[in-house]
Amino acid sequence: MLATDQRFGLDRRIRLPGTFQLESGATLDGVEVGYETYGALDADGGNAILICHALTGNQHVAGVDPKTGRPGWWERMVGPGRPIDPARHFIVATNVLGGCSGSSGPASIDPATGAPFGMTFPVITIRDMVRAQAALLDHLGVVTLAAVVGGSMGGMQALDWAVAYPDRVRAVVAIATAARHSAQNIAYHEVGRQAIMADPNWRGGAYHAGPPPAAGLAVARMAAHITYLSEEGLTAKFGRALQDRSEVSFGFDADFQVESYLRHQGLSFVERFDANSYLYITRATDYFDLAAPHDGRLAAAFAGTKTRFAVISFTSDWLYPTAEARRIVRALNAANARVSFVELDSPHGHDAFLLDTPAMNRVVDGFLRAGE
Amino acid sequence: MLATDQRFGLDRRIRLPGTFQLESGATLDGVEVGYETYGALDADGGNAILICHALTGNQHVAGVDPKTGRPGWWERMVGPGRPIDPARHFIVATNVLGGCSGSSGPASIDPATGAPFGMTFPVITIRDMVRAQAALLDHLGVVTLAAVVGGSMGGMQALDWAVAYPDRVRAVVAIATAARHSAQNIAYHEVGRQAIMADPNWRGGAYHAGPPPAAGLAVARMAAHITYLSEEGLTAKFGRALQDRSEVSFGFDADFQVESYLRHQGLSFVERFDANSYLYITRATDYFDLAAPHDGRLAAAFAGTKTRFAVISFTSDWLYPTAEARRIVRALNAANARVSFVELDSPHGHDAFLLDTPAMNRVVDGFLRAGE
Repeated sequence: MLATDQRFGLDRRIRLPGTFQLESGATLDGVEVGYETYGALDADGGNAILICHALTGNQHVAGVDPKTGRPGWWERMVGPGRPIDPARHFIVATNVLGGCSGSSGPASIDPATGAPFGMTFPVITIRDMVRAQAALLDHLGVVTLAAVVGGSMGGMQALDWAVAYPDRVRAVVAIATAARHSAQNIAYHEVGRQAIMADPNWRGGAYHAGPPPAAGLAVARMAAHITYLSEEGLTAKFGRALQDRSEVSFGFDADFQVESYLRHQGLSFVERFDANSYLYITRATDYFDLAAPHDGRLAAAFAGTKTRFAVISFTSDWLYPTAEARRIVRALNAANARVSFVELDSPHGHDAFLLDTPAMNRVVDGFLRAGE
Repeated sequence: MLATDQRFGLDRRIRLPGTFQLESGATLDGVEVGYETYGALDADGGNAILICHALTGNQHVAGVDPKTGRPGWWERMVGPGRPIDPARHFIVATNVLGGCSGSSGPASIDPATGAPFGMTFPVITIRDMVRAQAALLDHLGVVTLAAVVGGSMGGMQALDWAVAYPDRVRAVVAIATAARHSAQNIAYHEVGRQAIMADPNWRGGAYHAGPPPAAGLAVARMAAHITYLSEEGLTAKFGRALQDRSEVSFGFDADFQVESYLRHQGLSFVERFDANSYLYITRATDYFDLAAPHDGRLAAAFAGTKTRFAVISFTSDWLYPTAEARRIVRALNAANARVSFVELDSPHGHDAFLLDTPAMNRVVDGFLRAGE
């Protein structure tokens, strides 16, 4: 059935019927959701897993990214013989609302004007992303999810799924994430946004007819990229090693390998990402605070939950440190939820969840199988 | 004598005679050094203390900054009744070479062209800064220093003084600093430099006839400022508190207090600092590695030293963490130097050395008095 059902497969897109109500009160018509699916839905519909991506990720979890030609960004976790396996699971991955690889975002055409929305696109939230995913799952005929799995901003979506749709989520795997954005997290995002907005090519977000604000976006990416790595990881990988030279140049070239690496990170990012999307998605995470509707009591957000949770943090992750994971776990305990927590030893900082981390795979595999 | 000797007092400037040889091999003629002095030199010349400033500091340690009208940046440490007291000490503070408040830097006029140097100013190093200070001390008639005291980049200069002029320095107080710049330190500086260079107003550094690259410099400052604070400090000071509103705006205003604070830090910085100076001074710290001339053996840099050292770090300083301080201390121990080390408990991150930190003052006071 699946082979001939055009809803399923790589690099798909759906236009949601009707008007999409956003958390801000604004509305969007004709919302599009870019997505991929792998595997097949069981007859009883019980094997669906939703993968949520991080800030600059996309739906190409385990399929080639058509924009970059690169393999999927989480093939270490999702694929044959992996913890999330198309042979056993029906896997759905979407591009978040506000994104730039298939879902509606600021680069989408505003039907009212025929031009890209730019900064007239409404501000979206993690909840809006989750609700767009839920609408897609309705379209796909997925009633309940065996699990929602995500790292970083993907973990926020996973946690929010359990709050927004407690009856549709049997398990949540939240990796390297937090139930709220900290002041430091917001500060780094604000630096990135200011870097983009300081670029004259940004033009208030209306840059689609001209060159994009590539320099500002590259700086934003560079600043953010440092927060994805650990001090020890940077020292181990680069230290003070020089790039293609034996002596410093007494100049402003990229003398040090770490400079060269960062510049490359910035430059390659602008080829694949929309600057306005970066503004909107960072804003969505800044606004994320699951406890806010409950006067700061996070446990109240999870009251009565029947969902099982796995919370995973990494020792060297200073963007979403273990203290934030423990806060989630304490709240879940207070809500009498079933929760597994593990802090994994890794020198790779926040990025550990994207890397070859066998311990993480073992934890996720064991947790998912326990629910099958 | 001092009252009538124009060499001494607030807001002074000297032009060094002859040609100044830089570590890079380049030379500068007519180097100027901006400085202030407080107190009077003892008859035996034994009470002189040199204060070295951090990245964006200046010579106005305990005197009003004529540019901003603000009190000196280290009046908590330097002043009547303070550990460094003009009643007991002859205190000298300079603007570093490469700076923008009186010492020669990229904003200075190149006598060869009659226009500001801009990026034709030669790259300078911490050692160059130290040598310019030594030349100033020659001019002031100060042969030996009772102590060199500095935090952050000032601590680098203090350490380098003991290496460059072992016979002129009886004691070093190195606070919140390192004997080398780490990969992460370099990475953050590179982000700041790229932000400045991405600003079209930078114009390859030749912006003196037009508007300065204020937007880029503000972004650089914002990114750096986060590294001066701690995650816990940001959470305690701002958390997720909103700025002048009870609900988020669903927009890109500074909804959060931490955003408003950061924007202010960026904007106020551009009023007092030259963007090219920021490039040069960050580069000088990137190049700093006392062990480099000794195949990475830091102890060799201090071999035979008779200088006493006090090394102070702060628990929440992640820019120059305690591990870097311990590395200095281990090297000094290996060199049989006299060294005191203390890690002070503070939630204020790297900035702790600039704040009201009574424990730091007690340590510095006790250490200096032990040498008198």
